[in-house]
Amino acid sequence: MPHTTPGVKVDACIALGAEVVYVEPTSRARAETAGKLAAAHGFTLVPPYDDARIIAGQGTVGLEIVQDRPDVDVVLVPVGGGGLISGVSAAVRALRPEARIVGVEPELAADARDSMAAGRPVEWAAEETGRTVADALRVQRVGDLPYAHMRAHVDGVITVTEDEIRQAMRRLARETRLVAEPGGAVATAAFLYHRAELPEGRTFVSILSGGNVDPALFLDVLGPPRGEDGQDRG
Amino acid sequence: MPHTTPGVKVDACIALGAEVVYVEPTSRARAETAGKLAAAHGFTLVPPYDDARIIAGQGTVGLEIVQDRPDVDVVLVPVGGGGLISGVSAAVRALRPEARIVGVEPELAADARDSMAAGRPVEWAAEETGRTVADALRVQRVGDLPYAHMRAHVDGVITVTEDEIRQAMRRLARETRLVAEPGGAVATAAFLYHRAELPEGRTFVSILSGGNVDPALFLDVLGPPRGEDGQDRG
Repeated sequence: MPHTTPGVKVDACIALGAEVVYVEPTSRARAETAGKLAAAHGFTLVPPYDDARIIAGQGTVGLEIVQDRPDVDVVLVPVGGGGLISGVSAAVRALRPEARIVGVEPELAADARDSMAAGRPVEWAAEETGRTVADALRVQRVGDLPYAHMRAHVDGVITVTEDEIRQAMRRLARETRLVAEPGGAVATAAFLYHRAELPEGRTFVSILSGGNVDPALFLDVLGPPRGEDGQDRG
Repeated sequence: MPHTTPGVKVDACIALGAEVVYVEPTSRARAETAGKLAAAHGFTLVPPYDDARIIAGQGTVGLEIVQDRPDVDVVLVPVGGGGLISGVSAAVRALRPEARIVGVEPELAADARDSMAAGRPVEWAAEETGRTVADALRVQRVGDLPYAHMRAHVDGVITVTEDEIRQAMRRLARETRLVAEPGGAVATAAFLYHRAELPEGRTFVSILSGGNVDPALFLDVLGPPRGEDGQDRG
């Protein structure tokens, strides 16, 4: 795991019995170390996004969306390495071709937006993507297979600010009682704060894809508790 | 509102346009002040639990449970004033008579348990019920109409400790990504920590009935953030 990974995610892995090996927070360092460990110990490597089986598995999210809301018009999907949006867009497009699929990523890690604009996968530096609070979306470049899916099925990529991500986390917690990590809240942030940039429609689905948020960050996002004077309205 | 109400609930009312009048944290003070305000201003009083219409409305939770899980064996319901469990038990009993309905309340506010044992509504002192972190369940006595429903339809009442309530909140947040307030988490706590006291069954439903938790309490329950040394595993 990148040594910048939030403690809550490291803890969850350890609780499941994992032995954690830390790497520099670059896609290359992670892939190299994982490859070496797999070769040395005979482990099976599970790629995080650039893999047809992973994409097919994540496509079940798209199947569920169309099953639950056959009238869906617009689906908003967080984009890191691009695995989730690949599966979701392929599934939704197959079942409801008129639905629009929009990727969402942090403004501070907008490599997918740049890739769609450039017509090829564009890589951002780890120091750049590392700035966003959305640790799950610090991936520097979408995978090749995800990029092909995005070209085929995705209608656009929009970006959200760090403040919008925090506001979306806060509203998800306070109004829907859902714990979202920053990377999990970007699609909701796009719906809440970038409506004018989205395709028209009546039924929007925002995928909330992660809830491993460190308690201190979550408290910070929820707002300070009120003082004894009752004046701080959070 | 009782002046001991968590700020997050006061804020939510104010955000909805309410003017808040504080009262002493006793059922009598609340009822008296509400009655006076209603009489003086021509307001419609909405009783919190001792009312057939409120109970009928809360019964829709029971309808949804049986609709979603026709095989439900045991339903666990938080008990404060008893409105929720009245509606739920009446609805579930009507649709699936073989299901068992169990009320859950804090050990520190166990007036419903005592009422069922005594064969009449038993009142606890406000200083006693005020000790539990589950502010929503500090009601001192179940209502008369709820008590009649509980006698007719409820199979038992069990209690949970303060620590079990906190642990349940923590597990709900960490494992299911749901924000529960203390009173909302008691039924889950009963399922997690009092399984041996529950009726036998294969399909259990725990009602999670509130998510207005003050950020500071929520952080405290989630556990401290890890220090820089990475040793505190929360």
